[in-house]
Amino acid sequence: MSGAEAAMRRAIELSEQVKGSTYPNPPVGAVILDRDGEIAGVGATEPVGGPHAEVLALRRAGERAVGGTAVVTLEPCNHHGRTPPCVDALLAAGVASVVYAIADPNPAAAGGSARLADGGVRTEAGLLADEAAGGPLREWLHKQRTGRPHVTWKYATSVDGRSAAADGSSQWITSEASRADVHRRRAVVDAIVVGTGTVFTDDPTLTARLPDGSLAARQPLRVVVGQREVSSEARVLNDDSRTMVIRTRDPWEVVRALSDRTDVLLEGGPTLAGAFLRAGAIDRILAYVAPILLGGPIAAVDDVGVLTISNAQRWRFDGTERIGPDLRLSLVPT
Amino acid sequence: MSGAEAAMRRAIELSEQVKGSTYPNPPVGAVILDRDGEIAGVGATEPVGGPHAEVLALRRAGERAVGGTAVVTLEPCNHHGRTPPCVDALLAAGVASVVYAIADPNPAAAGGSARLADGGVRTEAGLLADEAAGGPLREWLHKQRTGRPHVTWKYATSVDGRSAAADGSSQWITSEASRADVHRRRAVVDAIVVGTGTVFTDDPTLTARLPDGSLAARQPLRVVVGQREVSSEARVLNDDSRTMVIRTRDPWEVVRALSDRTDVLLEGGPTLAGAFLRAGAIDRILAYVAPILLGGPIAAVDDVGVLTISNAQRWRFDGTERIGPDLRLSLVPT
Ligand SMILES: NC(=O)c1ccc[n+]([C@@H]2O[C@H](COP(=O)([O-])OP(=O)(O)OC[C@H]3O[C@@H](n4cnc5c(N)ncnc54)[C@H](OP(=O)(O)O)[C@@H]3O)[C@@H](O)[C@H]2O)c1
Ligand SMILES: NC(=O)c1ccc[n+]([C@@H]2O[C@H](COP(=O)([O-])OP(=O)(O)OC[C@H]3O[C@@H](n4cnc5c(N)ncnc54)[C@H](OP(=O)(O)O)[C@@H]3O)[C@@H](O)[C@H]2O)c1
Repeated sequence: MSGAEAAMRRAIELSEQVKGSTYPNPPVGAVILDRDGEIAGVGATEPVGGPHAEVLALRRAGERAVGGTAVVTLEPCNHHGRTPPCVDALLAAGVASVVYAIADPNPAAAGGSARLADGGVRTEAGLLADEAAGGPLREWLHKQRTGRPHVTWKYATSVDGRSAAADGSSQWITSEASRADVHRRRAVVDAIVVGTGTVFTDDPTLTARLPDGSLAARQPLRVVVGQREVSSEARVLNDDSRTMVIRTRDPWEVVRALSDRTDVLLEGGPTLAGAFLRAGAIDRILAYVAPILLGGPIAAVDDVGVLTISNAQRWRFDGTERIGPDLRLSLVPT
Repeated sequence: MSGAEAAMRRAIELSEQVKGSTYPNPPVGAVILDRDGEIAGVGATEPVGGPHAEVLALRRAGERAVGGTAVVTLEPCNHHGRTPPCVDALLAAGVASVVYAIADPNPAAAGGSARLADGGVRTEAGLLADEAAGGPLREWLHKQRTGRPHVTWKYATSVDGRSAAADGSSQWITSEASRADVHRRRAVVDAIVVGTGTVFTDDPTLTARLPDGSLAARQPLRVVVGQREVSSEARVLNDDSRTMVIRTRDPWEVVRALSDRTDVLLEGGPTLAGAFLRAGAIDRILAYVAPILLGGPIAAVDDVGVLTISNAQRWRFDGTERIGPDLRLSLVPT
């Protein structure tokens, strides 16, 4: 593995850590290597108004940036937003080259690479592009491309596709490790969506909690979808976070209502998930699969709009991870 | 990775290749390292009556075995069967040490390690024991321990746990790569079991076929379970292999009827699989999971005897492999 590749992996990790806190900016990671290829400084996007990743990393590197290499997950920006363009900072710092994973798709910010080249800086694009595009930048890139938030459907299931035993009991299908993983994810998304059915049955708080049960620092918007009225006693309406009630059954109306968000987590149940799947409104599936068999009538999803095998909804596995005793499968559209 | 460990990995691979052809002997792999740690000879168990793995590997190593190390997946045998004990061959060849993964659980064959030690040969047990016991030797060890054949339930499923679309169509849920994997597996098992339901619905031949559609050299016994009469026209009764019809609904009667076999593959459908699961007669689950969603009423398994979540059938993932676009999940009892 080259020094730049190791640095890019580090930059990707750094950006994962700030995912969810950078809106409307993308979560970016940067590593400055000095002339000898040693790490001289690292950074990740600060909340809006704060410095971008490259600027932070350059500050930390100081003089060691001169003649070095900046390794960044996204093409350095070339526009005056709340902060000056990152290319100016890179040129001023005297780096010899810039390596980035993904070109900036945002026309206002793009052109960074060309300006660096004009300034005599060597640039290289595409290093670990799939990792960056599929990982930390996925939701932001989707938003840039489509103008819509990225919707991940997350569900917990037995290996035989059930979300509850025959008597309706479902606590807990997946392990503590999987539940903790979901709570970490909730803390970085912009909104969590459920149907009224889940509110009536489970009365969930839909908050992001730490392993000790206390609330995470950042709470997503809670969204309840459906025409039935939600009681003011429902926990989802408590003061732990804000809640939006959308009295519709149209998935696209939900997506539109969340158009100022980037990263949306659909947590089911089966009725709402089926509606989103039939509408083609899901951009990623995260299945937490427990190594148990339940059988019986309660499936994790019922009607996905498929009548015959040739019309199956076709996805692609893009990741399989062990989470404690469970598996977390990630699927993206083909 | 030490030289012995690399050699053991090789021995395990070798033994995988002869799985299914060594009955009633275990599929064993052996690698002889010379004094310098170079591979001098390799071998795997030949069909019954032929030489055992160690003997083959020693023959190939010749003089280079003197002072070397024999790396074997199973403790060398110490009894006169159709062939002389392997320990005699190892002592005669002058190896300095023997490394094996698994102790021989068969009282008639055991004691090899002690005799080697008496003969001045250093022995070491347990190297990559889990890999050998979970892989090539799993079925044989199960048979030694329980006196019963090892039953693997194999099924194909969509990621949402369906084995067919709503209209019953199911060809094909999984990819060509997965189907080829199943055919390779059929060619090494001793028997394939289905219920009369599968015979009536699909009229399968239940043979092991090569990618070009021709029959594999070795064909498993075909077993049809159920009380209804199977028509003599059914393909499962053709001349491609032998077929046993067991007119029962008791899984244990099936297991008993196959007591002279080691490696049995249950291929469903859902009714028979459910019956075996409820009876606790499944030793391993192999799920070929396609990245598709089907929804609808046809689940890969219906009733596994679980009414409430606390009584879920609990298994353990012991392997996850990509097979083309699909995942193959392996589960074993906890
Ligand atoms: N395994 C998991 O990961 C998971 C996750 C969440 C929930 N669950 C379980 O799911 C169960 C609840 O299931 P559920 O399906 O009733 O919950 P749900 O999908 O959360 O809510 C269903 C409700 O969504 C509304 N809705 C919105 N769009 C719709 C559409 N296009 N078509 C139909 N309805 C639409 C309807 O409410 P109105 O009638 O008000 O319009 C409907 O009754 C609970 O037992 C819960 O534990 C499991
Ligand atoms: N997805 C997959 O991997 C897969 C694999 C195989 C089959 N399939 C599909 O499964 C469908 C057939 O399903 P199926 O469930 O009818 O097939 P099945 O399980 O192969 O056969 C069912 C029959 O097994 C007999 N049986 C044996 N023990 C039983 C017990 N304890 N309880 C009840 N019945 C017992 C009964 O026959 P008697 O009535 O004669 O006693 C019963 O009708 C086909 O569409 C096939 O394509 C899918």
